Amino acid sequence: RASKMDANDSIKILLATDNHIGYMEKHPIRKEDSFWSFDEVLQIAKDREVDLVLLAGDLFHENKPSRKTLHRTMAILRKHLFGSRPVGINVVSDQSMNFRSGQVNYEDENLNIELPIFTIHGNHDDPAGDGELSAVDLLSVCSLVNYFGRVHDHKDVRITPILMAKGEVKVAVYGLGHIRDERLCRLFKEGNVKWVQPVGDMNDWFNIFVLHQNRVRHTPKGALTDDMFPEFLDMVVWGHEHECLIEPVKGSAREFEVTQPGSSVATSLIEGEAKKKHVAMLEVTKSGYKFEPIPLQTVRPFLIEDVVLGDEPSIDPKRPETITEFLASKVEQLIEQAANENKPNKSYPNLHMPLVRLRVDYTGFTTVNSQRFGQKFVNRVANSEDILLFTKKRSLGKRPTLA
Amino acid sequence: RASKMDANDSIKILLATDNHIGYMEKHPIRKEDSFWSFDEVLQIAKDREVDLVLLAGDLFHENKPSRKTLHRTMAILRKHLFGSRPVGINVVSDQSMNFRSGQVNYEDENLNIELPIFTIHGNHDDPAGDGELSAVDLLSVCSLVNYFGRVHDHKDVRITPILMAKGEVKVAVYGLGHIRDERLCRLFKEGNVKWVQPVGDMNDWFNIFVLHQNRVRHTPKGALTDDMFPEFLDMVVWGHEHECLIEPVKGSAREFEVTQPGSSVATSLIEGEAKKKHVAMLEVTKSGYKFEPIPLQTVRPFLIEDVVLGDEPSIDPKRPETITEFLASKVEQLIEQAANENKPNKSYPNLHMPLVRLRVDYTGFTTVNSQRFGQKFVNRVANSEDILLFTKKRSLGKRPTLA
Ligand SMILES: [Mn+2]
Ligand SMILES: [Mn+2]
Ligand SMILES: [Mn+2]
Ligand SMILES: [Mn+2]
Repeated sequence: RASKMDANDSIKILLATDNHIGYMEKHPIRKEDSFWSFDEVLQIAKDREVDLVLLAGDLFHENKPSRKTLHRTMAILRKHLFGSRPVGINVVSDQSMNFRSGQVNYEDENLNIELPIFTIHGNHDDPAGDGELSAVDLLSVCSLVNYFGRVHDHKDVRITPILMAKGEVKVAVYGLGHIRDERLCRLFKEGNVKWVQPVGDMNDWFNIFVLHQNRVRHTPKGALTDDMFPEFLDMVVWGHEHECLIEPVKGSAREFEVTQPGSSVATSLIEGEAKKKHVAMLEVTKSGYKFEPIPLQTVRPFLIEDVVLGDEPSIDPKRPETITEFLASKVEQLIEQAANENKPNKSYPNLHMPLVRLRVDYTGFTTVNSQRFGQKFVNRVANSEDILLFTKKRSLGKRPTLA
Repeated sequence: RASKMDANDSIKILLATDNHIGYMEKHPIRKEDSFWSFDEVLQIAKDREVDLVLLAGDLFHENKPSRKTLHRTMAILRKHLFGSRPVGINVVSDQSMNFRSGQVNYEDENLNIELPIFTIHGNHDDPAGDGELSAVDLLSVCSLVNYFGRVHDHKDVRITPILMAKGEVKVAVYGLGHIRDERLCRLFKEGNVKWVQPVGDMNDWFNIFVLHQNRVRHTPKGALTDDMFPEFLDMVVWGHEHECLIEPVKGSAREFEVTQPGSSVATSLIEGEAKKKHVAMLEVTKSGYKFEPIPLQTVRPFLIEDVVLGDEPSIDPKRPETITEFLASKVEQLIEQAANENKPNKSYPNLHMPLVRLRVDYTGFTTVNSQRFGQKFVNRVANSEDILLFTKKRSLGKRPTLA
């Protein structure tokens, strides 16, 4: 496939993932962050007049979102979904196989939907409890999203694509909601994952695979690798990993491209989450595609820095107050840096107030009370309660996280 | 007002209340009951082509309905709400004053609603928690119901009617969601409940008041009495009381009529809940109204009987097995009676299996182990686990219940 655009029809897809709606919903400063960013994602989708939004899981942060979070999410969806712009794509696959609800929402003649959203579930919002329902099912039964990629037989996984056509452009979306890595690896290795392919020439279709699994090998229990996926794929949209690595890269053992959009809100104060966050527009034509990362404007600034107390001449081990003084001056620097890069915005009160994380190698020194230290920065740093993270022996490497 | 029908336009209202959706949702036999009856209520509304459904609270049994119950309720609502039959009524009052959502759902041009449902909240589904949201708010934000009658200032209650017009017929619906009886009584007595009246001649309007409070004076703390309500009302729809007393009766101190629809599912095994359950069609014309109770077909048969062991010659106090024998024969009789009156229906598996309650005055005798007794009637009585209720000294009078 060439990656050059044709003047012909195209299918425009907004890619985003891991919105973690409801994250920190009770935090005095950060409570709005996840809602603002999800709202922005949908606003971008509307402004760009995309044909669909494709989300890769962890729409909700909690398996049982609070009533308030559910209510607000529904309100945001309603605000953006409805309208009279015609939906350009046509779902030509068996919808009863694709969707829990049995039908793509915009084909319901009782609803006037102009922005169809398709999502799989993540590990945060996976199906659970009586009836094995996901919180996403509540949105689905109200026709607010199209929930797909759910595996019904965990011994024999069949990935049945949603086939979308618009004029001569054809996109097949293969979805796989989160399954425990170990189990899914085993299923792949034992050949129990079947890819249902459209009838006819596979080359007619632009084949997208959307999943929500560990990508980096965090633990010895293993994660998926892209050589487990079939050659016929054109693009893999990898959810769950929060670091924005959205620019597509070639698979390690395959020709397809892999995009990792990353989360729209930082849920861990680690390096990967400090990168600028994006969504992307994928525009597929008959002969290729165009890919455009779009930076999010509603993400709270997050600055992270590593310091080693032993390297700082201003610190006197016999005068612990010099540690506090040094760390406070570091935080002041980061606050100033954030202030230079981010201006207040009336629409998003306090959003310019940064997250700051100092990782402090204190080998040979004592720690500082992190809570008390933070009191100096209340209302200047969004996470004043946990600015400092003390580590020893420069062991500042990556640690496993639950994304 | 005459109660004779005109040939003119009319506004048809289906009255129902206390659906307690989700009640006993985990019970092996009774789990479907509340869903079936709510579904039937809406089916009746559709079949009768009413202009609206008016519910008087306790739509949900639990303040936090399970995900499964929410999901299923949404599915039932969606099944009945949508369609192309034009809605005949026009809401002419300030909708932002009436509805939490700011707009009556069928006026949303993005939705094709043919059956508008209006509801207040009850004590079971009252607003609570962060954001003071009711479970009904989740239905409201999805445009599945029109939630009204919520008091925002608990010191100064204003009851603002929904004004509905259809041709020359005009109906004003005053709603008041559940408030603690004691508090509400005080508000009434201190003159802090204001009734906002429509401009113009009050006689042009058929004035309905829908509330959800204790009606019977259960406790010394007092309940509302209808002399607290204004003279201009034509009909009071009284929710919360589960006994079906749907046929309108004159107020005790006022000229208006009071209808108490009662619950659509029995949530206590007491006499009041054993009565045949109904909803009603209220048809308002320019010069009067017609009122038609409609029996529900999906209510589980419930038979209740009082026995006094001391009155039974077959019982020998020295032979406790004679007590069990006597009680078992009584239950057999009730099962037979239920079987004669209710036939199995494939659409509602097990619905003909009755609820049976024997209230046993055992003065002078010993009790029987109720659990063990019930084992004989598993799969013949829907509540085999709690058939027997032992009382003393013939104190079989009414006891307070939380309806
Ligand atoms: Mn995840
Ligand atoms: Mn995530
Ligand atoms: Mn009640
Ligand atoms: Mn009730």
